[in-house]
Amino acid sequence: MNERILSAGNLGIKRFFALDSRAYEKGVLDDKTKEMMGLVASTVLRCSDCITYHVIRCVQEGVSDDEFFEALNVALIVGGSITIPHIRRAVDTLDQCREKQRKGRQVKL
Amino acid sequence: MNERILSAGNLGIKRFFALDSRAYEKGVLDDKTKEMMGLVASTVLRCSDCITYHVIRCVQEGVSDDEFFEALNVALIVGGSITIPHIRRAVDTLDQCREKQRKGRQVKL
Amino acid sequence: MNERILSAGNLGIKRFFALDSRAYEKGVLDDKTKEMMGLVASTVLRCSDCITYHVIRCVQEGVSDDEFFEALNVALIVGGSITIPHIRRAVDTLDQCREKQRKGRQVKL
Amino acid sequence: MNERILSAGNLGIKRFFALDSRAYEKGVLDDKTKEMMGLVASTVLRCSDCITYHVIRCVQEGVSDDEFFEALNVALIVGGSITIPHIRRAVDTLDQCREKQRKGRQVKL
Amino acid sequence: MNERILSAGNLGIKRFFALDSRAYEKGVLDDKTKEMMGLVASTVLRCSDCITYHVIRCVQEGVSDDEFFEALNVALIVGGSITIPHIRRAVDTLDQCREKQRKGRQVKL
Amino acid sequence: MNERILSAGNLGIKRFFALDSRAYEKGVLDDKTKEMMGLVASTVLRCSDCITYHVIRCVQEGVSDDEFFEALNVALIVGGSITIPHIRRAVDTLDQCREKQRKGRQVKL
Repeated sequence: MNERILSAGNLGIKRFFALDSRAYEKGVLDDKTKEMMGLVASTVLRCSDCITYHVIRCVQEGVSDDEFFEALNVALIVGGSITIPHIRRAVDTLDQCREKQRKGRQVKL
Repeated sequence: MNERILSAGNLGIKRFFALDSRAYEKGVLDDKTKEMMGLVASTVLRCSDCITYHVIRCVQEGVSDDEFFEALNVALIVGGSITIPHIRRAVDTLDQCREKQRKGRQVKL
Repeated sequence: MNERILSAGNLGIKRFFALDSRAYEKGVLDDKTKEMMGLVASTVLRCSDCITYHVIRCVQEGVSDDEFFEALNVALIVGGSITIPHIRRAVDTLDQCREKQRKGRQVKL
Repeated sequence: MNERILSAGNLGIKRFFALDSRAYEKGVLDDKTKEMMGLVASTVLRCSDCITYHVIRCVQEGVSDDEFFEALNVALIVGGSITIPHIRRAVDTLDQCREKQRKGRQVKL
Repeated sequence: MNERILSAGNLGIKRFFALDSRAYEKGVLDDKTKEMMGLVASTVLRCSDCITYHVIRCVQEGVSDDEFFEALNVALIVGGSITIPHIRRAVDTLDQCREKQRKGRQVKL
Repeated sequence: MNERILSAGNLGIKRFFALDSRAYEKGVLDDKTKEMMGLVASTVLRCSDCITYHVIRCVQEGVSDDEFFEALNVALIVGGSITIPHIRRAVDTLDQCREKQRKGRQVKL
């Protein structure tokens, strides 16, 4: 669907998508920290698809389970109980990633 | 005002305030990372007082200007142009903190 | 400003303002319960002017301090730490209302 | 999934879950009033899972259909037309609960 | 479900539904402009059902693909990357409408 | 403050600001329609500074009072009563612009 949107020829949307990717690339902050920030931001804003994306990226960048739960705890405290359904889904996605890792399979977006 | 609220005797509110403080204490993630997460979360949710608090805490934890702007860039991309007025205030608070540091004064909450 | 807006002749806005007033009038639920609902809704949505309005209306309907803090606790748990600045303002408005009551003055909108 | 999350050993999350449960327990306000507040807060914040939870709890606490619709009306006026899809789901859940009650079955979370 | 809700006899809800329909009727602004406004508002507030509704109405009012993407670009810039999953769904709905139009079928709500 | 932020050297933020300006430039949709969309989006998201900006731009693009109120009515219906404080400020800004126009002065950002 991203390809479909980018092919529509709207330059503003195309450029925004590029900026979006670049925001999480290593700079003075490393990818891992940026992906955890993306996870926290997506959780407090309760965006399911964004959360799934950042959980997978966090796993790829080597975020540990304890780091993951500390990040989710910040999101839970900032955003309150309405984030709980999204925290459940985040943990479910994490468990699926860990399951893949245990089986020696790659965790892919 | 926090003291006034805590003195009101509502146990739930009192305990929430305690959890709120603890969420940013060093765990497997360091204080600096947690405060930057708090800054990003507050910015996408557009909470002025929370942003001011986390900017000051970031400065106290030694976040550099470049790190600061990379964190704000994540917030801007995730949250869109409606975060801009809050990003302006965040940078204004940062500038005031740096001014204090240049004069050898302490940056306090 | 409400009069200015209503005088502009937009029927939709005029009718919405009427529905807004009626939503808090006594029905099968009493005014007090409805005003506390309005307070909780305004707090989780972080609307300062709405919070001030509903705090005053709650005081007028005889909401006690303990009831007030239990309602705010629900809002705090649901909405998280970003509601804290608004909870501070709500309590400040409550204190001003109580001060007026102690002096035998009327609490007005 | 709650058990999974609680077993992860993050104390902050564990304690938040406890505070969340306690916020709706009878205090100076009764359970019914608190659950209706939870319903209104969840509706204006448009959290589907939270709405389903509070609708069921409202039914368990004996909220009548008329009370239910007056609470939803407050949420609709405060939160606007974007709450309508969630109000539809709330009423659908209510109807399922009433159907169970008509058949003499228990309404469970 | 709308009929079910309207039949419940809550006058406030009934009247709000009427105001909601009327807000998009031709006035000094035409239907097309109003539906595009509804689309932008629904997208920044990330309401899936509302977006689907306004995409279909936009197509019925003759909004072109380029106009559609310019409206979505405004929403994307204002609301940030968390609107992307909803922009994907909006474009998917648009494609389904265009497919129907190519086959000479009517685009219906 | 925008200059201060742009001078900080964060390329992502710089480019976002450029995209933000371009989103409202005439394309297949004219400036006036885009500014009204910006006004509606800012109002439902309750961003004061953004609303002030778009009200002024709407006035500069020749939006009439009736068009203005129809746009605000869409925002009010979509976003609910929590938008009312922002609608008041929008109308106040409009009145200040009209006052300037009556005195033959230019309406500037």
